[in-house]
Amino acid sequence: MHPRLTGIGSTTWVVADGYIPPRSSGPEPEMTSHDSICMLNPGDSQARVEVYVYFTDREPAGPFLLAIAPRRAFHQRINDLRHPEQIPVDTDYCLIVTSDVPIVVQHTRLDSRQEANALMSTIAFPV
Amino acid sequence: MHPRLTGIGSTTWVVADGYIPPRSSGPEPEMTSHDSICMLNPGDSQARVEVYVYFTDREPAGPFLLAIAPRRAFHQRINDLRHPEQIPVDTDYCLIVTSDVPIVVQHTRLDSRQEANALMSTIAFPV
Amino acid sequence: MHPRLTGIGSTTWVVADGYIPPRSSGPEPEMTSHDSICMLNPGDSQARVEVYVYFTDREPAGPFLLAIAPRRAFHQRINDLRHPEQIPVDTDYCLIVTSDVPIVVQHTRLDSRQEANALMSTIAFPV
Amino acid sequence: MHPRLTGIGSTTWVVADGYIPPRSSGPEPEMTSHDSICMLNPGDSQARVEVYVYFTDREPAGPFLLAIAPRRAFHQRINDLRHPEQIPVDTDYCLIVTSDVPIVVQHTRLDSRQEANALMSTIAFPV
Repeated sequence: MHPRLTGIGSTTWVVADGYIPPRSSGPEPEMTSHDSICMLNPGDSQARVEVYVYFTDREPAGPFLLAIAPRRAFHQRINDLRHPEQIPVDTDYCLIVTSDVPIVVQHTRLDSRQEANALMSTIAFPV
Repeated sequence: MHPRLTGIGSTTWVVADGYIPPRSSGPEPEMTSHDSICMLNPGDSQARVEVYVYFTDREPAGPFLLAIAPRRAFHQRINDLRHPEQIPVDTDYCLIVTSDVPIVVQHTRLDSRQEANALMSTIAFPV
Repeated sequence: MHPRLTGIGSTTWVVADGYIPPRSSGPEPEMTSHDSICMLNPGDSQARVEVYVYFTDREPAGPFLLAIAPRRAFHQRINDLRHPEQIPVDTDYCLIVTSDVPIVVQHTRLDSRQEANALMSTIAFPV
Repeated sequence: MHPRLTGIGSTTWVVADGYIPPRSSGPEPEMTSHDSICMLNPGDSQARVEVYVYFTDREPAGPFLLAIAPRRAFHQRINDLRHPEQIPVDTDYCLIVTSDVPIVVQHTRLDSRQEANALMSTIAFPV
């Protein structure tokens, strides 16, 4: 059973603080430093998601294409994106996430550069 | 004394980055790794809350039923939910929290997998 | 010089995850574990702020009265509130912050129970 | 390729918890304790950004002038601002960020005072 929630969320979200820490401490891949977008597609149709990556000194990269099945969670490490390109570590970026149906996006980073890990998270900005 | 605040908040909230770290360091239960929804029912009638848990690869679990008395805080560790099922650790999920009266929801994780704990928190997304 | 910003913000804010960690590591008061509300009064008249503290098992405490001068920052550790009462450590709570003029509220916790400190922060929920 | 996104975001943002930790552990400048505003200018014209810094006990400082090129990320450590003045460490402050075109602002702090770093982040408050 689940609530009827088609239509909740937004079709455009912005993450302004993107950064992949360049080093890690602890067992991989669990404790690998990463920057993630955590998404929910609460509706009853598949979400076609496009991610655009904005940099300090060049034109945006993307779209990176993702599909989220109906009523499913989808947590994507930015580190793991490969097509059309790989996002470099130790580089400032921002993200725009668009979807053809409403979704919800939260931004989380695990930073294990030093001996104990650090975490940060925020709801992304819904347009 | 307290302010008259019936009607503030929202009746549907989304948490997109759910995850229970699979290990802990330090004294239990205080320093046990956990993922929590922290709720306030500011109004003058009881809140009947339903929590739905969305996964990557199966249909949502729930509803998990909670009751929050009028004018009360209620911090619920997702780790501690048992009915209708227990949420597995080390597994990505998202949450939808619904209430019959407006509440406010904040999402917080304590991660003590490594030797010092890490914390993250964000206001949930109000629909 | 400063922008003319009277009227920005909200007159009611909610913090749902309140908690003062019961122990600390490192030099006091800088590294003392604390839970804070960080406020800006951007306008040109004094803000009269009332803080109400909601608990799990008893009626709310407060109001705690604060005054924020025009165009001033005001970061208040909840640990340091004394009148009408002191908030206990290691206890779940929520906060409602009201003001007679619009302000902006952010919630931050420093947790130094373990050997390295942890931090979390979120914009509070504007009603 | 990038989405047509002129007009998304807001022209005024508030950060209520500003603080630059006064010490650091680890290699500089990467692990230097810092307080940052992370901005995206998603539109097709340059953003002229003004940052105002509000203190506890004196009139606001600023404007600090920044320019963000079209379709670019811009992450600014508050520590690194120099004109019209330098922001002191170990001092509470708040920020108001204005722009002549809509931008998105996220607030992040890295605190490496103790042996492992701590992180916090939140979307800023859009007016």
